[in-house]
Amino acid sequence: MYVGLDVGGTNLKGARVAEDGSVEARLHEPVARERGEDLLEQLRRAVQTLSGGSRPDAVGVGVPGIVDHRTSRLQGAPNLPALAALKDADLAAELTHRVACPAFLDNDGNAAGLAEAWLGAGRGASSLLHVTLGTGVGGAVILDGRLWRGQSGYAGEIGHIQVDPQGVPCGCGSVGCMETVVGIRGWVRRAAELRASRATRLKDVALEPATIVAAAREGDAVALQVVDEVARCLGQGLGGLLNALNFERCTIGGGVSAAGPFLLERIVRETRSRCWANVFENCSFRLAELGNEAGVVGAARVAMVGLADRRWA
Amino acid sequence: MYVGLDVGGTNLKGARVAEDGSVEARLHEPVARERGEDLLEQLRRAVQTLSGGSRPDAVGVGVPGIVDHRTSRLQGAPNLPALAALKDADLAAELTHRVACPAFLDNDGNAAGLAEAWLGAGRGASSLLHVTLGTGVGGAVILDGRLWRGQSGYAGEIGHIQVDPQGVPCGCGSVGCMETVVGIRGWVRRAAELRASRATRLKDVALEPATIVAAAREGDAVALQVVDEVARCLGQGLGGLLNALNFERCTIGGGVSAAGPFLLERIVRETRSRCWANVFENCSFRLAELGNEAGVVGAARVAMVGLADRRWA
Repeated sequence: MYVGLDVGGTNLKGARVAEDGSVEARLHEPVARERGEDLLEQLRRAVQTLSGGSRPDAVGVGVPGIVDHRTSRLQGAPNLPALAALKDADLAAELTHRVACPAFLDNDGNAAGLAEAWLGAGRGASSLLHVTLGTGVGGAVILDGRLWRGQSGYAGEIGHIQVDPQGVPCGCGSVGCMETVVGIRGWVRRAAELRASRATRLKDVALEPATIVAAAREGDAVALQVVDEVARCLGQGLGGLLNALNFERCTIGGGVSAAGPFLLERIVRETRSRCWANVFENCSFRLAELGNEAGVVGAARVAMVGLADRRWA
Repeated sequence: MYVGLDVGGTNLKGARVAEDGSVEARLHEPVARERGEDLLEQLRRAVQTLSGGSRPDAVGVGVPGIVDHRTSRLQGAPNLPALAALKDADLAAELTHRVACPAFLDNDGNAAGLAEAWLGAGRGASSLLHVTLGTGVGGAVILDGRLWRGQSGYAGEIGHIQVDPQGVPCGCGSVGCMETVVGIRGWVRRAAELRASRATRLKDVALEPATIVAAAREGDAVALQVVDEVARCLGQGLGGLLNALNFERCTIGGGVSAAGPFLLERIVRETRSRCWANVFENCSFRLAELGNEAGVVGAARVAMVGLADRRWA
């Protein structure tokens, strides 16, 4: 039995997960946002609560930041002060000590990708590019069923592929990254620009991907243009990655993927024109299936895989 | 003892290669360009000549085309009719039959990358992006010492990452691929455009990367602009790939890499501004070291690795 914990900017979610992936218990509470010690103690209690007296085989934790797997140290966690305060600690060792069983840590996008590969839209594929669309744009690279973390844990950071050298500045320090167009702020910025000078039913609504997609479905030209530009930009980034890595499957998750087939069809069409025909034909595109569950199930999978890997160390 | 054969558009090169990578015999002759049967027979004779009476452990062949490793069939070999004529054959099986020992086939860019990873500029790195700069722009993706081929053999086709949606049409059917700027035809086209309207010492020379780099070294503004645009475009493509895969090393090979540190320094600078600081710091950039030897040594390595893999099949 494994425990998976998903540390978010607002909430801590947790689950007890059996070997076959079934969820046997859940937990959902506000996260200890400020102090590192409070967060560690909250994680310990959550494991205790979820495991119900017996000791888990292992614990996995997904965090909103890059984890250097060589040291189990965070490279930064901009949205959660409590986590940022722990950046010099070997978090896996610290947690292992507190929960008295092996603990493993990974980036939340990697955890979600592992979950989809295991039980969701990536099931059965030997290689998977999982894309997370939200405020940030991230992902996970899974090759032959294994997560590829790269040299220092950054693998999967596909949101910072430069798609437009003349584009807008990105928080990462570069310019015209995919995230500047495809991240939620990109949708909102573009819709705001366009509605300033054109007739659209987006005039008096709060701009967010859901309202923009709703208007686009009803034929609103401005909203359609925003959706098409997002899809084109994703097609550019994904087409390049598919050519370079020739994935068997590409799954689209994260909050924005709630836009569903309406968005997916456009992404697929734009990707198609930007990669080899053979590469496109050998890749299937799917919406993520696990929704909110991906975080905790993926964290449990991080634990399961981490433990299994020790057999071969 | 292994035999490596490098099938080019003009020449067939071959080598007998020992377990430690040392080359014990060489062969270099015009390739049988037209008929598939002639090419197969030439390969058989080359193996016989190189192995000098004893039977090789295995034979590896690098070819100028994409090989679908699932079937050992070519996806296309535009520059060599004899090879294109064999596209429906299981080439590894056919060669195994003719040379009476296990034979393995791979794309020549993959073979070169394996060679650099084994004995050249990629040595010691656990992950490597090898870039081949020539008329075409290709590469190899090597992760944890293993070549990643992807679902149908296209992995490493990094020349067809779209860098400019408003760019020029590419032979692959897309528009603004990295190869349209960075491939030799891209250098030549851009230099021709610029020299038509500006003073430059490129006025009366045959345009090719070597002459353009030579003029740039001497401070010619037009030549420098061409080199800088090529480097910027490569920086865009490589920066995105580094973010997505977080390689430990990036090696630059192929004929154009003869431009040496003058080009490499610019590529590195342009890549740096387009990826995470941590990702950049964790990647070392080097010029390929094996030159023309990479093809045959890499083909021998394809054989060696192919044979070793059978232990685990």
